[in-house]
Amino acid sequence: MKILLCNDDGIHAPGLAILAAEIKKIAEVVIVAPAREQSAMGHAITMSDPLRAEEYYKNGDFFGWAASGTPADCVKLALFALFDDRPDMVISGINQGSNTGINTLYSGTVSAATEGRINDIPSFAVSLTSYTSKEFAPAARFASKLALQMESLELPKGVSLNVNVPAIPEDEIKGVRITRQGLAVYEEIYHRRTDPKGSVYFWLDGERRQEENDPHIDERAVRAGYISVTPIHYDLTHYQTVQTLSEKMVNL
Amino acid sequence: MKILLCNDDGIHAPGLAILAAEIKKIAEVVIVAPAREQSAMGHAITMSDPLRAEEYYKNGDFFGWAASGTPADCVKLALFALFDDRPDMVISGINQGSNTGINTLYSGTVSAATEGRINDIPSFAVSLTSYTSKEFAPAARFASKLALQMESLELPKGVSLNVNVPAIPEDEIKGVRITRQGLAVYEEIYHRRTDPKGSVYFWLDGERRQEENDPHIDERAVRAGYISVTPIHYDLTHYQTVQTLSEKMVNL
Repeated sequence: MKILLCNDDGIHAPGLAILAAEIKKIAEVVIVAPAREQSAMGHAITMSDPLRAEEYYKNGDFFGWAASGTPADCVKLALFALFDDRPDMVISGINQGSNTGINTLYSGTVSAATEGRINDIPSFAVSLTSYTSKEFAPAARFASKLALQMESLELPKGVSLNVNVPAIPEDEIKGVRITRQGLAVYEEIYHRRTDPKGSVYFWLDGERRQEENDPHIDERAVRAGYISVTPIHYDLTHYQTVQTLSEKMVNL
Repeated sequence: MKILLCNDDGIHAPGLAILAAEIKKIAEVVIVAPAREQSAMGHAITMSDPLRAEEYYKNGDFFGWAASGTPADCVKLALFALFDDRPDMVISGINQGSNTGINTLYSGTVSAATEGRINDIPSFAVSLTSYTSKEFAPAARFASKLALQMESLELPKGVSLNVNVPAIPEDEIKGVRITRQGLAVYEEIYHRRTDPKGSVYFWLDGERRQEENDPHIDERAVRAGYISVTPIHYDLTHYQTVQTLSEKMVNL
């Protein structure tokens, strides 16, 4: 089995190194990751600029390809430019910070997995729900187990998995919960500041969020100590509305 | 009615100007659009850099705010930083080029509308299905009619519309078709080149795509001469799989 690893924190990120070390125990690993951090890049791709992919070495050993683009670009490059063979799986992560709820849309990590799945490759994203903890090992071990089980899960065409692992000691993790994406709205907080030349600028600084109480929402599951696994897909069509809208828009 | 306009082609783009002129006939218009082109930015947002929004004038008249970030940033700035009042609607476009099928995921234009809808504002994106035609007027007139009808459509919470207008003479447009997002896979074509210093780089150059024959797919509808209207949402959860996966993953 050949597994392509990607992320959005960049090829230097510790989460990727720990994931790679773990996955190498069960599969051939190829890595194409952004040369620089690409957090919150969503499903952005590079269309108007050339892309570069350079060999990246760690301690004298070849580690993978550092690409100039976004996470989705990395997967596209791996599939259509860099290699002759397609990987059997795409794993994206381990992301530093949770990718739950609405943040799923903004996540470059998730989009790399989605890009793999668009191209019919079994794919999942895995994130550690802390912006500071470097305890990636439990998440890496879970990713390895999941990789081995992916085929037996028989995921439908177009469906990938978004995995979030709580940043708590491994023996305190209560298990796995299959979840749905939270939909709570964020109220963004921007700081308005003035630069030394007198021009106004804004810094995004966290957000206030509504609470959702359903335990089967991704964010709630990780906060309760579970690994959340959300099956996601990239068909954005709202099918119920397709049916009702046809009648309502007849006169437009 | 106050309508926020955004796009991903940038505040200078003719599609935005023509849309603004048309929408001003039926509503108060505020514009926050990227200072530079942000095509294919997907749902990227700016988290690590400050954002700027500067007044942009056209022919001596104030036109709108030119922001340094992505289309989604523009909508966030409009809602949470620049104005005291929320708009009643968000319209994103008119995009130069179609946003159908898988391209819906990559589109900054669509993501701006999605960002509006995340924040509970009725929203739609509108694109002209040509990368060269400047005949935006029919799409602008349709956007105006749709804006007036949005309330009566009673779209469910979280649902926005992705509109694609065929780039053909207005009297040849056959009508409106409610569609679903195409899912055909693109096989990307990258050109491998060598720069003057001998380093390899890649240029993305179009794609080969599978054909989908269902007339109710967005891409097929516009090619048949219809305006396609696809109701989309941002809950990526694949609900059928949530149910089946709980049993299969019990031993992980």
